[in-house]
Amino acid sequence: MLRVLAVASAALGPRAAGQVRTMASYQLLVPPPEVLRKPLSVPKRLLLGPGPSNLAPRVVAAGSLQMIGHMHKEMFQIMDDIKEGIKYVFQTKNPLTLAISGSGHSALEAALINVLEPGDSFLVGTNGIWGLRAADIGERIGARVHPMNKDPGGYYTLQEVEEGLAQHKPTLLFLTHGESSSGVLQPLDGYGELCHRYNCLLLVDSVASLGGTPIYMDQQEIDILYTGSQKVLNSPPGTSLISFSDKARNKIYSRKTKPCSFYLDMKWLAKFWDCGDKPRSYHHTTPVISLFSLRESLAIIAEEGLENSWKKHQEATTYLQGRLQELGLQLFVKDPALRLPTVTTVAIPAGYDWKDIVSYLMDHFNIEITGGLGPSVGKVLRIGLLGCNATRENVDLVVNALKEALQRCPRNKL
Amino acid sequence: MLRVLAVASAALGPRAAGQVRTMASYQLLVPPPEVLRKPLSVPKRLLLGPGPSNLAPRVVAAGSLQMIGHMHKEMFQIMDDIKEGIKYVFQTKNPLTLAISGSGHSALEAALINVLEPGDSFLVGTNGIWGLRAADIGERIGARVHPMNKDPGGYYTLQEVEEGLAQHKPTLLFLTHGESSSGVLQPLDGYGELCHRYNCLLLVDSVASLGGTPIYMDQQEIDILYTGSQKVLNSPPGTSLISFSDKARNKIYSRKTKPCSFYLDMKWLAKFWDCGDKPRSYHHTTPVISLFSLRESLAIIAEEGLENSWKKHQEATTYLQGRLQELGLQLFVKDPALRLPTVTTVAIPAGYDWKDIVSYLMDHFNIEITGGLGPSVGKVLRIGLLGCNATRENVDLVVNALKEALQRCPRNKL
Ligand SMILES: Cc1ncc(COP(=O)(O)O)c(C=O)c1O
Ligand SMILES: Cc1ncc(COP(=O)(O)O)c(C=O)c1O
Repeated sequence: MLRVLAVASAALGPRAAGQVRTMASYQLLVPPPEVLRKPLSVPKRLLLGPGPSNLAPRVVAAGSLQMIGHMHKEMFQIMDDIKEGIKYVFQTKNPLTLAISGSGHSALEAALINVLEPGDSFLVGTNGIWGLRAADIGERIGARVHPMNKDPGGYYTLQEVEEGLAQHKPTLLFLTHGESSSGVLQPLDGYGELCHRYNCLLLVDSVASLGGTPIYMDQQEIDILYTGSQKVLNSPPGTSLISFSDKARNKIYSRKTKPCSFYLDMKWLAKFWDCGDKPRSYHHTTPVISLFSLRESLAIIAEEGLENSWKKHQEATTYLQGRLQELGLQLFVKDPALRLPTVTTVAIPAGYDWKDIVSYLMDHFNIEITGGLGPSVGKVLRIGLLGCNATRENVDLVVNALKEALQRCPRNKL
Repeated sequence: MLRVLAVASAALGPRAAGQVRTMASYQLLVPPPEVLRKPLSVPKRLLLGPGPSNLAPRVVAAGSLQMIGHMHKEMFQIMDDIKEGIKYVFQTKNPLTLAISGSGHSALEAALINVLEPGDSFLVGTNGIWGLRAADIGERIGARVHPMNKDPGGYYTLQEVEEGLAQHKPTLLFLTHGESSSGVLQPLDGYGELCHRYNCLLLVDSVASLGGTPIYMDQQEIDILYTGSQKVLNSPPGTSLISFSDKARNKIYSRKTKPCSFYLDMKWLAKFWDCGDKPRSYHHTTPVISLFSLRESLAIIAEEGLENSWKKHQEATTYLQGRLQELGLQLFVKDPALRLPTVTTVAIPAGYDWKDIVSYLMDHFNIEITGGLGPSVGKVLRIGLLGCNATRENVDLVVNALKEALQRCPRNKL
């Protein structure tokens, strides 16, 4: 049904109609949507869920800058700054350290698709949603996945890990440092060393913990570490941070197959981020503005100092936990040493529907707290104190709001 | 080497040392980087390369807003607005229409990994870098890839495509609408119909063309169409727009294997973006601020009207082409009907090193134009007039700068 041009030609100006293209009589059948005529309006929210968190003021300022090219020399400098910042917050000297152009999940995916080849054995701590997702991705790429299942609230002892290593002889072990769906802080001391004795690489998710509690990538012998931009770093979501030890790098560079993704292919990214290989060449268009923001959030934490940041989170969260207990609420993680200093989980108080409480805080106070996620849904409420949100003032705000919610929300509805 | 806690404990505040974790004596060995103490400084640039382009002022304003949660109802409304905006600029009614949390390449990858299964036959127009990359990704996921090779500057006739369809019986054909590395506008009328006669789906890359020249997804029977945020739409890079016809959707929903990516799994994304399946559930944290910006850029083009936007690009680019020819420069694409109205390619003038010219404009005028890319490197200079940058004033600026560069840059250096 190719006919001679009707409507479309008008828009083509001096272009000769029907020269190469046989112009059909197309028309604009989808009108401009009415919804887009309304001005963009965004409410003010205090984000005290498990993330994303509010942006630091300096990060907001960075987000309002104009574009430069993703290959301009000033941009390469910003990328270099970011690499140095990541090395600092990760406490690593790994040359293969960079930011991924996607959210935390894309960093997890980057780790798995680059390190694992089809048929590789993959041991996964599935004590919450993040391990379940790592297992899911492992299966997609054809690894032999061995989940170590635990209920939400559990963590892995060195002994349990050693059993898994001995039994499954994995290439890679996945652990979640800050299990934000259950509020558990997985201990990390000794796990890297243990993995290496079994010729296994250690991959750690620190999306919800990095910057809020100690982690020492090199000294703890973590082979692959990643985190997100939108938690303690108070940057917009959309970028993530990742680093690979030399052992992990060697595994990537001695692969027999290409990873199934080009976008996340670490050999390409390493070149683009100038992590060793030359020449620095175009791979994809990086999220320039988000990288401005990320650079600023790394500058802020470098200025504050990691130890101060850890301390700030621990103090604010300890204060929060105390105030919650004063309200008569139960912390979901019983052992204080296993509680995350960033995201606190509270057992849902008896007789309440957690959705009522969450909605009450949102509707009456514009404060976000959330319910559980994945296996912890219906078990917990989650309160996050992340980066610049980790203050006593915010604790008082959220606890007072919660107190009111407990008075006003229906109890024993059914 | 696990010892009792020394330095790290100080930062842990009230946490009991060594309870569950055997604390080792870790120290901060990587100091805060000096580079991050310098204030972030970003030069003012006129981005007249093939993209990214400058941001529209309203887009800058959107980028400076504070965060809200990626699951807040206001965010769902913004996502709905974006879906409607994409349907308008794509001229489609496809329910499976959404934004991907990654750059143009991630949209290409999303198309390929969701539609192709290992062993599927994939026909690719490799007349420039984008087709080469589609072929590369196709190979990574185990498709049988059939490239139709052409030198930069070439396009595909209906007859050539029909030969490929008859010979290779592909599941999917990839064509680049705006081949930004060569400056070629691939005709699209009749290609969808032709593919469907051969039971093949049509995938079109419109990253460098959408909004700048007519495209009618539904009427042209395009099955999968994607574009980037950072070209005609004048948004920051980091998100991309994609839509799937019912035929393409059926292929995805009748797959026997899971796609190798979770991050780009269209069944998950379709739920998260509320494109039919229920319930709307968390998949990954979307780039909230970038989505604010994208929403605004779609609102701008909806207000302007697609036909006006096409006309604006055609007029500015025709004016540019005339002025370049007045300077004695040769356009790389000989046939005027095959010239992209967004990105213009100029043959490198005899005796010059293209890098000198590009650097001259950058150093003396803060204007970006670029050399070629992939197969077109060393063959062309590329000038883009994208979205709000498509003005006669910008043409005059870049042409005058180019004139000066041609006078000042060394000729016949060797
Ligand atoms: C521990 C942990 N891992 C991974 C993720 C996934 O990150 P994203 O949502 O940015 O993809 C999250 C996000 O909440 C998280 O808390
Ligand atoms: C035609 C075309 N396709 C794909 C891309 C890739 O997009 P991105 O760099 O955003 O990944 C580009 C980018 O310049 C392009 O011009």
